[in-house]
Amino acid sequence: MTGFVHFVSAGPGDADLLTVRAVKCLQAADAVLFDDLSAGPILALVRPGTDLVGVGKRAGRASPRQDHVSKLLVDYALTGARVVRLKSGDAGIFGRLEEEITALTAAGVAFDIVPGVTSAAAAAAAAGIPLTRRLQAQRLQFITAADVTGQLPPGLNLPALADPQATTVVFMGKRTFPALVQALLAHGLSPATPAMLAESVSQPEQTLWRGTIMSLSAMLETERGPLPGLIIYGPLAGGGGVG
Amino acid sequence: MTGFVHFVSAGPGDADLLTVRAVKCLQAADAVLFDDLSAGPILALVRPGTDLVGVGKRAGRASPRQDHVSKLLVDYALTGARVVRLKSGDAGIFGRLEEEITALTAAGVAFDIVPGVTSAAAAAAAAGIPLTRRLQAQRLQFITAADVTGQLPPGLNLPALADPQATTVVFMGKRTFPALVQALLAHGLSPATPAMLAESVSQPEQTLWRGTIMSLSAMLETERGPLPGLIIYGPLAGGGGVG
Repeated sequence: MTGFVHFVSAGPGDADLLTVRAVKCLQAADAVLFDDLSAGPILALVRPGTDLVGVGKRAGRASPRQDHVSKLLVDYALTGARVVRLKSGDAGIFGRLEEEITALTAAGVAFDIVPGVTSAAAAAAAAGIPLTRRLQAQRLQFITAADVTGQLPPGLNLPALADPQATTVVFMGKRTFPALVQALLAHGLSPATPAMLAESVSQPEQTLWRGTIMSLSAMLETERGPLPGLIIYGPLAGGGGVG
Repeated sequence: MTGFVHFVSAGPGDADLLTVRAVKCLQAADAVLFDDLSAGPILALVRPGTDLVGVGKRAGRASPRQDHVSKLLVDYALTGARVVRLKSGDAGIFGRLEEEITALTAAGVAFDIVPGVTSAAAAAAAAGIPLTRRLQAQRLQFITAADVTGQLPPGLNLPALADPQATTVVFMGKRTFPALVQALLAHGLSPATPAMLAESVSQPEQTLWRGTIMSLSAMLETERGPLPGLIIYGPLAGGGGVG
């Protein structure tokens, strides 16, 4: 008897931003493997008796290695369990599904992916701005700005990222943003480009900070805080975004 | 007495891919202004007596002008109604919110944006692939490939779009994809780059077609069909996406 794995997108954090399908998957789950303690209100949706297994970095203990997480996922599924692998935001966007999908495929375990609300969409919605606008922000791009060592990843396409007619969303970018801004300026992006920092998007403690890429870079040089944050820069990031 | 407008993201079409908050907004609405008849199962969520107002291009009649839609939205809100303005996918991504937000702001009507599942995330999930992968598809970008006249928009950032290490999602791109591919090839993108066409994502009639940018371009030259489609190209678009 082989189980099944749903990779479920948890959205930005507010349980109201789960999809209906995600709620159904959680309510039917025998086991939920999750990354992040902040998923509390979401984990509260499961049935009594469901195994809740924290495998993430912020669960107050050392992070299990990825191969251990993959093995745990396979082992749960091979017991015949209906397993939810919860991923923050949209699972397919910087969710690092690849190792886990590879392990499931090798073990003959079927899976599906339940798409969800990316934190980028939630942050923009919280700020009351669209992410695109005709003639002004015609291209929307997402990058992650920290590699496994926490540094700016090699091989960033800096000309693409310095495009003044794009909205750029930087995941995991607080630490490396000053270095990224130096590179963007060298590729011609204006220091006055609007920028927004969103922390704890959709949570009660949500904060939105707005300025320019220069002022945000300066702030993050000296005062970064412990929360993960999402940075959005480009012509729409400055305010109402419309006018 | 002034009402309130929720810009509600409808997601790709399956009512199970609405967020819980979107369902709540629909269930509390006095009026729903929607673009697309395909939203049938979603519109079925409203209370009896809710005004359902089709303002889109595919409601079997001529499309109302945008300023008429904006005026209608304001007029409904000024009656004190709780209005849902339903937008497909995520409302902030190519949802053209700007005119309507400007009109609401000018009339003093408060609004919020309920983020949702972009069709890009739903199409990738349906294909069982992530949209990003470390070292291989580090940047994710979204464009729309048709301007108001249906042609390829001017000012596309072709070097950014020809990046072999990005996943690119093209909204409204079926008609112009052959011209886009010619431009991408001229900017050095390999003709063997994997490409996927998704139609009616998340609907019962969903189709997923896979090939390369060249074979997709050739197909769309001769056989385009009436359905709107989403195109994804890049290293992950070819298949399991993982290996």
